Amino acid sequence: MRDLTYASSGVDYDVLDQFKRACQLAAASTKQALEHHGLAEPEGVRGESAYLIEAADRFLVHVEEGLGTKVLVADAMLELTGKSFYREIGIDTVATIVNDLVTCGALPLVVAMHAAVGDADWFAKGTRARDLAEGFAEGCRRAGAVWGGGETPALRDIVCEQGIVLAGSAIGQIAPKTDRITGNVSADDAIVFVASSGVQTNGITLCRRLAEQLPDGYLTQISDGRSFGEALCDPSVLYAELIRGCRDAKLELHYAAHVTGHGWRKLMRLDESFVYEIETPGTPHPIFQFLLDSGLSRREAYATYNMGVGFALYLAPHEAAHAVRLAEQSGYRAWIAGRVRKQGDRKAVLIPSLDLSYEGESLQLR
Amino acid sequence: MRDLTYASSGVDYDVLDQFKRACQLAAASTKQALEHHGLAEPEGVRGESAYLIEAADRFLVHVEEGLGTKVLVADAMLELTGKSFYREIGIDTVATIVNDLVTCGALPLVVAMHAAVGDADWFAKGTRARDLAEGFAEGCRRAGAVWGGGETPALRDIVCEQGIVLAGSAIGQIAPKTDRITGNVSADDAIVFVASSGVQTNGITLCRRLAEQLPDGYLTQISDGRSFGEALCDPSVLYAELIRGCRDAKLELHYAAHVTGHGWRKLMRLDESFVYEIETPGTPHPIFQFLLDSGLSRREAYATYNMGVGFALYLAPHEAAHAVRLAEQSGYRAWIAGRVRKQGDRKAVLIPSLDLSYEGESLQLR
Repeated sequence: MRDLTYASSGVDYDVLDQFKRACQLAAASTKQALEHHGLAEPEGVRGESAYLIEAADRFLVHVEEGLGTKVLVADAMLELTGKSFYREIGIDTVATIVNDLVTCGALPLVVAMHAAVGDADWFAKGTRARDLAEGFAEGCRRAGAVWGGGETPALRDIVCEQGIVLAGSAIGQIAPKTDRITGNVSADDAIVFVASSGVQTNGITLCRRLAEQLPDGYLTQISDGRSFGEALCDPSVLYAELIRGCRDAKLELHYAAHVTGHGWRKLMRLDESFVYEIETPGTPHPIFQFLLDSGLSRREAYATYNMGVGFALYLAPHEAAHAVRLAEQSGYRAWIAGRVRKQGDRKAVLIPSLDLSYEGESLQLR
Repeated sequence: MRDLTYASSGVDYDVLDQFKRACQLAAASTKQALEHHGLAEPEGVRGESAYLIEAADRFLVHVEEGLGTKVLVADAMLELTGKSFYREIGIDTVATIVNDLVTCGALPLVVAMHAAVGDADWFAKGTRARDLAEGFAEGCRRAGAVWGGGETPALRDIVCEQGIVLAGSAIGQIAPKTDRITGNVSADDAIVFVASSGVQTNGITLCRRLAEQLPDGYLTQISDGRSFGEALCDPSVLYAELIRGCRDAKLELHYAAHVTGHGWRKLMRLDESFVYEIETPGTPHPIFQFLLDSGLSRREAYATYNMGVGFALYLAPHEAAHAVRLAEQSGYRAWIAGRVRKQGDRKAVLIPSLDLSYEGESLQLR
């Protein structure tokens, strides 16, 4: 496969990052507004996956997120097979919002949908509009949250004629405040991996380019007998029940990472310098092997995709087996994957069995 | 001007409404999730401008909203004049979210931005990206809320190459719970109007079509000496300070309406049947006279646009003058505009001095 790299996916991240920085500066200038409400902004919260507001007895948590380009795969599959994967897309949309929200230890209370189309006729095609609504509700059920409101504008000349922008927001809560996951990781902490369902919502652009290059496109069979497109549409796992289970069992989580963009490099998201050694990377789903067989380098794959791991928990080593049991009780596949080490100022993710290592400078998130 | 009506603006509301109904049904099926959090959904809240969650000592309020197509006017003006109106657009984006949120008596705590572009190069053009960030922060300051997080994806093949979808969400709070504005309107209540800044964010599609038909387009001069396009870009008024002022003064508001889509028909948004008689409609801004002079019928104008009135308060008649004073103290222009009457089962908005009346069946919102 030609040119299947992250950098070649055609998005100018420099310009985007400049805008993000301008937003972060402007946003930070507004924080004194919270004082008038008797609230405060916790230190260091900007740039994290969720925004927190501190009240006397709780944290309120706010996330705004978008699904990205996975809808284009579902649309292509609808054209090719007549089958709508929009129930899955609805679940994905909730997952992308909620999985960011729970990393700080919050549980989601309410989720809202934003669905902007270029033409209202989008909603008239087959069952996909109904499927999307049902999937979004199913996602909310899996998240343990109510589906509150939403917005469904038709934006001709802004959204493409066949396009839909799916996004939304959620309110979560951490109460009592001691349930907050703060990032107090120490050397020798264990890392527990919780399985994903496949690609989930990340690295879709690369997959679309691959489909364009394959003679049978999305209909190419992968090793589990299904088509590439069908496997791509598997809905994301929601990790809210995982966090709820850990909270109910009073398990002390030191950190939690939602493994999405930047793949396993996300494992070193903390500011402090640690080396994260992954001894048991697990076996990725057939769709990942398909991507590797199609020419994606292993190095690029683990730097971009979740490679079978949707969520990572960091905690004291003597609690790791308990965390795995709790995850399994809630229906997740989980395993003790590795360990946190201190090596001076070095920040890195190491996967010795795959001969892979990523140094800290390869992850610039903030 | 040819064919300048709401119905001809090219959006298929039937299909959209079907989807909204499917969403409302699916969403309503998720409400028991709140019980596990010790929370409840107040009766009758679905279909209102904001979603409420009831806790023991407060209501949490959630709004997800989008700006719509006003960005296309700002983009056209940038092309024509080289001037960026994106600071105004940033304020508008916050206003569209927050003005819905405050109708229930909530004050906004935090606002998040969603800005999805078709091409990251959108952010590289002149000052508009920086202006947008600064305007959004200014909107948050005017709302008395912190700008929390946000999301800025580049969605090629979903959003048009030159397009930007601006939207966002907010969390608000009503505490104590008795500050909630519940809609307990009675006959003889006064209606206080609070001025808008002009078209604000509604009826933009019609204005764009008008610009296409005018020889000088957006550069056509209106009676205040400015261009049509410049007047269109005036940023919306934020009504959060209005609600805060009324709360601080313990003024009991029976109802509050954000006058946007459906124009003055929105004044009869309550389920119960009343006749709303507007004796003092006020003098709309020059831009509205320009629309009327261009061929928009007065009937259509008041059914579509805010016509100078961005917000309406309903309250006991002996409190009306106090409400006007409070609004003026916070920098708003306000006046006692009319009165609520009971006429059996009739639901209508009457504007005798303009010889206009709208019956209830002309407003189907839910």
